[in-house]
Amino acid sequence: MPDMSALDALWVLIAAMLVLIMQGGFLCLESGLTRSKNAINVALKNAFDLIVAAILFWLFGFGIMFGAHEGLQLDTHWFIADFSRDEFWHASFFFFQLTFCATAATIVSGAIAERSRFLVYIIITALISLLLYPVFGHWSWSSAVNESPGWLEAMGFTDFAGSTVVHSVGGWVALAAVIVIGPRTGRFIRGKVQNIPGSNLPLAILGMLFFMIGWIGFNGGSTLAFTTAIAGIIVNTIIAAAAGGITAILLSMTQQDNSQTTSLTINGTLAGLVAITAGAHVVSTPQAAIIGGLGALVMFLAEKQMHRMQLDDAISAVPVHLAAGIWGTLAVAIFGDLQLLDTGLTRTGQLQVQLLGIAACALFVFPLSLSFLLLLNRYTPLRVSAEAERQGLNVSEHGAKTELSDLLSAMQTQERSG
Amino acid sequence: MPDMSALDALWVLIAAMLVLIMQGGFLCLESGLTRSKNAINVALKNAFDLIVAAILFWLFGFGIMFGAHEGLQLDTHWFIADFSRDEFWHASFFFFQLTFCATAATIVSGAIAERSRFLVYIIITALISLLLYPVFGHWSWSSAVNESPGWLEAMGFTDFAGSTVVHSVGGWVALAAVIVIGPRTGRFIRGKVQNIPGSNLPLAILGMLFFMIGWIGFNGGSTLAFTTAIAGIIVNTIIAAAAGGITAILLSMTQQDNSQTTSLTINGTLAGLVAITAGAHVVSTPQAAIIGGLGALVMFLAEKQMHRMQLDDAISAVPVHLAAGIWGTLAVAIFGDLQLLDTGLTRTGQLQVQLLGIAACALFVFPLSLSFLLLLNRYTPLRVSAEAERQGLNVSEHGAKTELSDLLSAMQTQERSG
Amino acid sequence: MPDMSALDALWVLIAAMLVLIMQGGFLCLESGLTRSKNAINVALKNAFDLIVAAILFWLFGFGIMFGAHEGLQLDTHWFIADFSRDEFWHASFFFFQLTFCATAATIVSGAIAERSRFLVYIIITALISLLLYPVFGHWSWSSAVNESPGWLEAMGFTDFAGSTVVHSVGGWVALAAVIVIGPRTGRFIRGKVQNIPGSNLPLAILGMLFFMIGWIGFNGGSTLAFTTAIAGIIVNTIIAAAAGGITAILLSMTQQDNSQTTSLTINGTLAGLVAITAGAHVVSTPQAAIIGGLGALVMFLAEKQMHRMQLDDAISAVPVHLAAGIWGTLAVAIFGDLQLLDTGLTRTGQLQVQLLGIAACALFVFPLSLSFLLLLNRYTPLRVSAEAERQGLNVSEHGAKTELSDLLSAMQTQERSG
Repeated sequence: MPDMSALDALWVLIAAMLVLIMQGGFLCLESGLTRSKNAINVALKNAFDLIVAAILFWLFGFGIMFGAHEGLQLDTHWFIADFSRDEFWHASFFFFQLTFCATAATIVSGAIAERSRFLVYIIITALISLLLYPVFGHWSWSSAVNESPGWLEAMGFTDFAGSTVVHSVGGWVALAAVIVIGPRTGRFIRGKVQNIPGSNLPLAILGMLFFMIGWIGFNGGSTLAFTTAIAGIIVNTIIAAAAGGITAILLSMTQQDNSQTTSLTINGTLAGLVAITAGAHVVSTPQAAIIGGLGALVMFLAEKQMHRMQLDDAISAVPVHLAAGIWGTLAVAIFGDLQLLDTGLTRTGQLQVQLLGIAACALFVFPLSLSFLLLLNRYTPLRVSAEAERQGLNVSEHGAKTELSDLLSAMQTQERSG
Repeated sequence: MPDMSALDALWVLIAAMLVLIMQGGFLCLESGLTRSKNAINVALKNAFDLIVAAILFWLFGFGIMFGAHEGLQLDTHWFIADFSRDEFWHASFFFFQLTFCATAATIVSGAIAERSRFLVYIIITALISLLLYPVFGHWSWSSAVNESPGWLEAMGFTDFAGSTVVHSVGGWVALAAVIVIGPRTGRFIRGKVQNIPGSNLPLAILGMLFFMIGWIGFNGGSTLAFTTAIAGIIVNTIIAAAAGGITAILLSMTQQDNSQTTSLTINGTLAGLVAITAGAHVVSTPQAAIIGGLGALVMFLAEKQMHRMQLDDAISAVPVHLAAGIWGTLAVAIFGDLQLLDTGLTRTGQLQVQLLGIAACALFVFPLSLSFLLLLNRYTPLRVSAEAERQGLNVSEHGAKTELSDLLSAMQTQERSG
Repeated sequence: MPDMSALDALWVLIAAMLVLIMQGGFLCLESGLTRSKNAINVALKNAFDLIVAAILFWLFGFGIMFGAHEGLQLDTHWFIADFSRDEFWHASFFFFQLTFCATAATIVSGAIAERSRFLVYIIITALISLLLYPVFGHWSWSSAVNESPGWLEAMGFTDFAGSTVVHSVGGWVALAAVIVIGPRTGRFIRGKVQNIPGSNLPLAILGMLFFMIGWIGFNGGSTLAFTTAIAGIIVNTIIAAAAGGITAILLSMTQQDNSQTTSLTINGTLAGLVAITAGAHVVSTPQAAIIGGLGALVMFLAEKQMHRMQLDDAISAVPVHLAAGIWGTLAVAIFGDLQLLDTGLTRTGQLQVQLLGIAACALFVFPLSLSFLLLLNRYTPLRVSAEAERQGLNVSEHGAKTELSDLLSAMQTQERSG
């Protein structure tokens, strides 16, 4: 262990395991918030995400992200790497990063659930694992492995655990996909948003708990070492989540329709987590509470805006991961302790760099994924047929029936004929 | 890290994460053992518990519990504390204690599930997080942070990880709430207890597994340091759980009605865990098996007694957390190695102090919460309307429908009309 | 801590906790892949497995496995041991081994789900915890505690974390039980296999994630120390799992019937995990990918073969744990770095010893469990009645009803009568 002490490596390993729990969070959240006729499809996609992202990130993604490339001359040192003979630290860090990449990939799929063809999930996962996450990650974080920092980090861009690098990247792709694929049938009737009740809200809430546990690793591990700062970072993370959740509960009380309390509570908590991710290491605990609470508000407003624009995001992935991610990245400059930030920038300068990073992410990820998906849509439809959507993707995509899905469809038939 | 070595802090952090998994255990257990028409309500309450307890315990609870108060002059040092700049150990310990406080709070809600207004959960959570847990905890554990021990610990009261401090506190509040709010409609017909089948027993059993995993942190972390004792403490914990489970299985065989095997097995295992919590550090592994097994028996007898008294505890929280908690606290004096206990007391003396602690908890928590709830009930009903109870709290409290709840209610209507 | 450093003990403890998560994996997988009328029965069995295995392994199993027996003269030192006063390392290691024993036991129950009497589960768990796992484990791993290695390890047999010692032992018993108990009614009609859809595929996929997380402890902890090798071992484990999953997805595309995609993906991933278990410490990451991928192929072919032989394994436990386990044990000799293996054997010699270990497991476990179950079947039927099987084991074995099971059975009745 030349680079790191044993305790550092152990901590990164533990953190990576915790982040894996977030995959369970996505699975529970997404299959809980969607209808049972699509729940298998959604859950299976979560399994595929992880598997496909793991292989592709190992084959090339990690190498693209952390290679010491010179211009367009790629450093292939980390392609298809053998981590078993490598230094302890590199293998631990690869595992940690792999779980981050899988997180970025899995954000998208929830947004376009219930009407997308399964193939689209795989293609988007490949796009994120091989190109979008590694390249933007290279700009922001590459110094973790190689000597030369990426251009954004060199300028002082600070995104501790990935409000932008992970969550906004996933969020921008989700937004592009939501636009290209279009809303679920029946989601907007005469311009008014219609609630589509989820199949299993308790499961979705269990997902929220998995997120809170997993995020301890997401933020706590991003020190990449076992430092005295991590306990404070973890407390900041938990308090920001709780503040986000409470803000969402209060916001839900202002709504006429109380049927969204559950999803708002979940998404407010997640927005609090996303928002604190960029600056958990440079803010105080009370500031973390404010950042988390405002994160939930930003999520809430973004969701309203998406409804107004008739954009249908089945699990509010864009408001949570993109909107709260942008807010969190800005909050670094607004609240962060400049000494701890240690970028040598003034507060205004830091704010400009944070805005630059946010803009770079937007301009790199959104147009690229939008045009890619529009192009792809010409060759193969991204959306299932109206009949398949009505029937549910469990059956149309996987021929997967369950007793309950059989029963529910029989009941619906009866209801209609009856 | 002035107070603790890095490994100690790491261990407390890991333990706190494990205890968070217990929140998933409560969620699965409670929503699995209740009817689907209430399952969302129950699960949402678990999310709220955690969020609200986290914020309130951070704002004031921790400060009340661990401040160096002089009489009624409060030491406000830890109120709304900034743990990000504090010592590593304090932030870790706060996180650990926060998960304990959330555990105490969440015990209550399961007991009064399926007929309580949502507001009641929030108020009870606030009562526990701000007053009951911090004050009783101050009496028993305050020396963990400040120099001066609380009066109970000064007398030699020993409750290693909280059979009384956490579980009985929650259990006494649950008992008061069960008395004030009354049984679910249909639970007792002509004085005879009627089984109300849960919606998802596999989920409840998954909850039991989460408890076993989480309890490793609950007990293992209560050393507050990484000592050579923890592996033995963890083995004691697992063996006590297993002994409790097996005792419950054997007890279930003595029953005419075999429909309670599942919930008995789960609750026997939990009772074993609660019972070993007070003395896991001072008993041998065979003694742990005996304590766990007797814990299940105590739970079983307490449940029978509650049925006789027509007290309706939807998930047997009182038998598990209060009854087995009392037993576990006594077992410290009965079985504990006096040298390891190191209180300087004789076995009889220790037994007296344990009884004193149990009595102090009862006399402080039960009358206070009973009168508080009775008073509150005058101003705002704690119970939903009979119609809302029939309809289910998912709909009446949250307007939350699911396909399945729709279907089940349609079926019931059909059955009646048909 | 005389034997191990604190960090080593901490690592083994963490690993043991992770392996406990695998019990949640089995629960989710098995109750998800079976019908809801049996889901409670299956989940309850998972709880019993763990509890019963824990107690019996503590009472005698661990002592049989790691005692320094001289011929038939048993060393009873570890029987009903008090780990609370023992060395740190022994208690940690006992906990780790206990989770392994529970894993071996729980493999069987899924295979014979939906038609076995509950008693059979308990008896098989006892057989595995007291005899089969401890004895075969003694042959392969006893040097971990006592000086004298078992005869297989003395010859150079290498099974790092138990492709044979845990998974094949469970798999052979499962095969024997499947043969004796016979297929579920309706599984084979005129020799053709009929799909029996699971009740909750999202839950089964969540189980797959729990397995991936738990296996990090299973393989990572089997170093029994915190060495620089563990990060590479963990990466190998994850990559093998992903390669197994992807292979299974590709295989599922070759099938006419796309309804098996979900279970194939899950089982391919698990087969990848089982396969890498024996040699995760001696192969490179690319080799791990190949071993995992081929593990899924072996699983797939074994499943086809079982269908041809009309053997009904409800969750494909035999193809996953036995077939992929055998392949993984051979792969040690095929791919393993001889220097790292450090057995002093040539590649051919190593292959012979691996074959010997596989044969020893087969010849010890399979005939013994087959004849035991055949004999037992004479005295008490292992299988429920045809009526009970039709009705579902939730009701017939536990009297456990749920709203949904009630509803489904009412619907079926209606359908028939209607």
